[in-house]
Amino acid sequence: MILYFTTIPDSTSWLNTGNNGWMLTASTLVGLMSIPGLAIYYAGLTKRKYMVNAMMMALYAFAAVLIIWILAGYNFGFGTSSLLKIDGYYIFGIPSPAGAGSFISGQAIVGPLKDALTIPNSTVMFFQFVFAAITPILLLGGILERMNFKAWMIFVPIWSLVVYSPVAYWLFAGGWLNQLGAVDFSGGYVIHLDAGIGALAAAFVIGPRLKDEMKMKANNLGLVMLGLGLIWLGWDGFNGGDPYGATIDAGIAIINTNVATAVSMMTWMFMDLKFFKKPSLIGASVGAIAGLVGITPAAGYVNIYGAMVIGIATGIIPWIFLYKIEPKFKVDDSLGVFSSHAVAGVVGGLLTGVLADPVVTQYIDPGLRGALYGNFYELGIQAFAAVIVILYVFALTYGLLRLIGVFIPLRETNARLKIGDMAIHGEAGLDITGYPPSPPMHAIEHNNIHMEGNEKIDKD
Amino acid sequence: MILYFTTIPDSTSWLNTGNNGWMLTASTLVGLMSIPGLAIYYAGLTKRKYMVNAMMMALYAFAAVLIIWILAGYNFGFGTSSLLKIDGYYIFGIPSPAGAGSFISGQAIVGPLKDALTIPNSTVMFFQFVFAAITPILLLGGILERMNFKAWMIFVPIWSLVVYSPVAYWLFAGGWLNQLGAVDFSGGYVIHLDAGIGALAAAFVIGPRLKDEMKMKANNLGLVMLGLGLIWLGWDGFNGGDPYGATIDAGIAIINTNVATAVSMMTWMFMDLKFFKKPSLIGASVGAIAGLVGITPAAGYVNIYGAMVIGIATGIIPWIFLYKIEPKFKVDDSLGVFSSHAVAGVVGGLLTGVLADPVVTQYIDPGLRGALYGNFYELGIQAFAAVIVILYVFALTYGLLRLIGVFIPLRETNARLKIGDMAIHGEAGLDITGYPPSPPMHAIEHNNIHMEGNEKIDKD
Amino acid sequence: MILYFTTIPDSTSWLNTGNNGWMLTASTLVGLMSIPGLAIYYAGLTKRKYMVNAMMMALYAFAAVLIIWILAGYNFGFGTSSLLKIDGYYIFGIPSPAGAGSFISGQAIVGPLKDALTIPNSTVMFFQFVFAAITPILLLGGILERMNFKAWMIFVPIWSLVVYSPVAYWLFAGGWLNQLGAVDFSGGYVIHLDAGIGALAAAFVIGPRLKDEMKMKANNLGLVMLGLGLIWLGWDGFNGGDPYGATIDAGIAIINTNVATAVSMMTWMFMDLKFFKKPSLIGASVGAIAGLVGITPAAGYVNIYGAMVIGIATGIIPWIFLYKIEPKFKVDDSLGVFSSHAVAGVVGGLLTGVLADPVVTQYIDPGLRGALYGNFYELGIQAFAAVIVILYVFALTYGLLRLIGVFIPLRETNARLKIGDMAIHGEAGLDITGYPPSPPMHAIEHNNIHMEGNEKIDKD
Repeated sequence: MILYFTTIPDSTSWLNTGNNGWMLTASTLVGLMSIPGLAIYYAGLTKRKYMVNAMMMALYAFAAVLIIWILAGYNFGFGTSSLLKIDGYYIFGIPSPAGAGSFISGQAIVGPLKDALTIPNSTVMFFQFVFAAITPILLLGGILERMNFKAWMIFVPIWSLVVYSPVAYWLFAGGWLNQLGAVDFSGGYVIHLDAGIGALAAAFVIGPRLKDEMKMKANNLGLVMLGLGLIWLGWDGFNGGDPYGATIDAGIAIINTNVATAVSMMTWMFMDLKFFKKPSLIGASVGAIAGLVGITPAAGYVNIYGAMVIGIATGIIPWIFLYKIEPKFKVDDSLGVFSSHAVAGVVGGLLTGVLADPVVTQYIDPGLRGALYGNFYELGIQAFAAVIVILYVFALTYGLLRLIGVFIPLRETNARLKIGDMAIHGEAGLDITGYPPSPPMHAIEHNNIHMEGNEKIDKD
Repeated sequence: MILYFTTIPDSTSWLNTGNNGWMLTASTLVGLMSIPGLAIYYAGLTKRKYMVNAMMMALYAFAAVLIIWILAGYNFGFGTSSLLKIDGYYIFGIPSPAGAGSFISGQAIVGPLKDALTIPNSTVMFFQFVFAAITPILLLGGILERMNFKAWMIFVPIWSLVVYSPVAYWLFAGGWLNQLGAVDFSGGYVIHLDAGIGALAAAFVIGPRLKDEMKMKANNLGLVMLGLGLIWLGWDGFNGGDPYGATIDAGIAIINTNVATAVSMMTWMFMDLKFFKKPSLIGASVGAIAGLVGITPAAGYVNIYGAMVIGIATGIIPWIFLYKIEPKFKVDDSLGVFSSHAVAGVVGGLLTGVLADPVVTQYIDPGLRGALYGNFYELGIQAFAAVIVILYVFALTYGLLRLIGVFIPLRETNARLKIGDMAIHGEAGLDITGYPPSPPMHAIEHNNIHMEGNEKIDKD
Repeated sequence: MILYFTTIPDSTSWLNTGNNGWMLTASTLVGLMSIPGLAIYYAGLTKRKYMVNAMMMALYAFAAVLIIWILAGYNFGFGTSSLLKIDGYYIFGIPSPAGAGSFISGQAIVGPLKDALTIPNSTVMFFQFVFAAITPILLLGGILERMNFKAWMIFVPIWSLVVYSPVAYWLFAGGWLNQLGAVDFSGGYVIHLDAGIGALAAAFVIGPRLKDEMKMKANNLGLVMLGLGLIWLGWDGFNGGDPYGATIDAGIAIINTNVATAVSMMTWMFMDLKFFKKPSLIGASVGAIAGLVGITPAAGYVNIYGAMVIGIATGIIPWIFLYKIEPKFKVDDSLGVFSSHAVAGVVGGLLTGVLADPVVTQYIDPGLRGALYGNFYELGIQAFAAVIVILYVFALTYGLLRLIGVFIPLRETNARLKIGDMAIHGEAGLDITGYPPSPPMHAIEHNNIHMEGNEKIDKD
């Protein structure tokens, strides 16, 4: 309630209400991608006996990341101060709490280069939090159906702090990779390469699912469709929020995002039709997500034809990795997060270095142009940044899990896995008992009426 | 990432960030109405063995429309150039691609009358795309449970180009029906009459469902409720976005939309109670959707009492069509799209010609007034526009499907229909196998604790 | 369609498009919390045979509240006129219709103190409607699985008018409790204390569930997760909309909301782990909701550390009430709405009186400060307001239901309850019949391919 609302200035000199409103909306859309989006997408794709476990791990991660984010992660990734600076290059920020009233109500000043925005710190912290949160939830797709819930409770906040925040500092907040010219519009590397490599490393350390459970047995494609829809449209906030306002570039990023996704899904469906003979919903959903991931580093930098090229590439290359290359790996990446996120993220990151169109980039990052427009350096630095992120994330994820494994088992016991959710959480995801008994007449009455006409058709 | 964000002007002279942010939000809400909204609404209403097929057809249409939209459809429907102009009336636009960086970043100039907006072309293209996409997805409701998926793959993009885009040009973009004074605030004709008549024509050409499957057997009312909720609230973007900004009229359109829907659902429930004795969720959902459809052509033109009148009309007239008139048709319109979309759309379009209130229209379309305010011409031109749209859509849909049927079967084979999703897509929608075995104790432990109190109640 | 859009002024002197766009978005988010949010959250938590009934009661309430809101409730709660004023304190507004074109298009002037906002009346009416609608839907959680649907149809609009609107007038619109200095940022009292006390009173009058049905038997945790996600992120609109614009305070309210919720859920999970040994999804969802409720009266008044304190309190105190104290009550509050809403709302309301930080409140309510900042009066007046609301809501709810019970049974008959949805609504929520027969091979084909790699792992 606002007792004295009219005495409050409607805006200060730095606040743009259009930008702030859009950023709060975009943040909420990205939040919905995780909770319930990815939680139910995974719940639908797992075996029924693990659906509660998948949802709980996602839900837990969302909360745990927010707490570490306020206490240390935000300032470590986006703070203006730096802990380590070498030759003018910003390497690490300073982890410190960010909860004071004066801070959250102030104008957002982001990163060591001190970009001043038209929105308050509270808005930027929340927007960047939903990105931080979704990253371990994406990673989770690689280690479903066997990781010990308690080990996950320990892993998530530490990983977020020591893996996510530094990479964000380098590629989102103006740190050394940005300073060298690498760009990542909305997280092809910071979110998706992080998650995909993290998933691979984690699956490697934790080991495979139970022997007779290594096939995917999706239990509920309604949940998969729901999750996919929230993820796809939620991505309008994911990529549309990165200009930090409702700018021209926000509109461009959103149309590009949707076009690349549509093209990627379509390409994937044609690959499925050609090689598997049937277009499957699960296949289409993975194709769409690969497109979303691929356009992410490029969304506000390319024109729509560039977005289409990226969509074709992510409909083919991750498809080949998922079905032809990754199965040869001796790692059980449950849902193929390596192919659909790490590979698609790198495809998008490199193509950003090719397709970044100066006519578009002038509205967000003037001077940025890709190899197609004569700047081959951009492609090279994008490749370099990918290598750095891969090495850093793999090493840290591997080491962190080995360390946690010293103190607590990384896997649930086989006995508990055999039972699933009832053993781990004391709950079953879906009641399929025969109670109440099947009704004699399922269709509702007015269908019988509607039927009259249909019966006439039959008779004719 | 924004390396040099502060050097970008926060807005140009024509950009209104409040309007742009709202339009991006509204577009996303409308997108969510299709994916996952309608996809799961249909998945819940079909027989279980067809739920994947329903979702895949919806998902495919969303992607296919976007691709044709960029390549030709947007400019055909909303471009500033015209292919055919007769006596000053604009009849057809020019289909041409719309993906260049300079175009998507420029100020939106819409239609042959060259309306200049305060948002970029990218935003308008995306907003109008989500309308184009939902139209064949609505049509789909009429031909569920038998259409050949591959025929659908061919049908959707062509129909969108040759049916949807021209009607949009006539009634949304300032073409000849608009020039004659017909109005359609947000698509009572362009979306819903198109979809309803298209569904009828398609059901007629394709033929009915399998003989023993012509009753509706809804398999999952949870999905129906989810779909309905996303559709209802998503309509805030559907009708609230048509002023192309967060204007006064946007607020009016949204409150009207919700009031008409509530009144229509309530009226439908009373009809159900009176004639079927039980208020059903499926009935309530159809009643709500009829209200949403009916208010669509009127939302930003009437006052709230007008919205109530429309809600009462759509709670009665489409109800009578669905249960008393359409069953006499020799066409198997699976979900009754003709009654709930075509009939409701015409009811709303005609009532717009009656109820358009000049006190309201001054904020969006000054001078517009309905018969109730003395302008009987408005009612006449609304009726004329309905007839034109019905004839055009029926003829083109019929002809297009006959043509496609020459090259590829329009129906799945009966053998494949008998099996359903596993035959068509290689997937089943819901795993109801008995694995894992029913747990001995379903309720979670803390319920037992909560129970103690309840047991006390029992004893008393 | 906009024929003459360019002739419309883009804004009037009082309209802020950034604020209006955000408020329309926030309203939509809050609407989604009810439909489908709470509807499916309840559908998932009930026994399967009652899921349609739970959804129908929620859906009905949403529509019924909107109709009474337009006809009388909005002006009774937020109108500028007052029916009763004592010693300068505003006690009751005047119930009158609010649907004229001139009213809905005008600048919003709210409450007897005539706060002038930067958005139109239509937007404020819709925003305040979604709060009014969610309140009886929350109350519904206490009387699930036995209330007569027809009695609910009568109860909801009357309760909304005689209970909800007056409390809103006192604590949201500037009425006497506000005038005494009590504050309720976004409805800890007006929504949650109302709903929780109303649920207790209603459960008391209506009586308990069937004897053998008094344990909760959640039938679908996928729906629970979906509902929770929409409720959690929807709360960004719930608390972020209360500044009536995209202000600095909106950003603060949203980050605080999410932090309190995360902390509360985490605390609840630790309580579950300590006392029940397993972290359950249902438990986590209730913990999250308790946090959302607790931060609601405080969201725009405290700093993030204050939000953390509230989260810890709502993770412990409502937990104790739900599992240790409420079970001793001789009232069958089906889902524990008293503990999770009334208790959490009072905890938040009192802590607002302690933690309100003047550094934050200067952006929304200058001068407001809590006991921690030296103003013990604030804590006292918050306690007083809680007592008033509890007494008013309990008495009116009790009396209203007794009165309705004179004319119509408040409970469904036991015979109908035994059957459930098929008897009450003629529909079953989920089809679990064995049709089509289980496919011999459930996994889709490409999984077999993906399997090759996994089989290799097995062999090693």
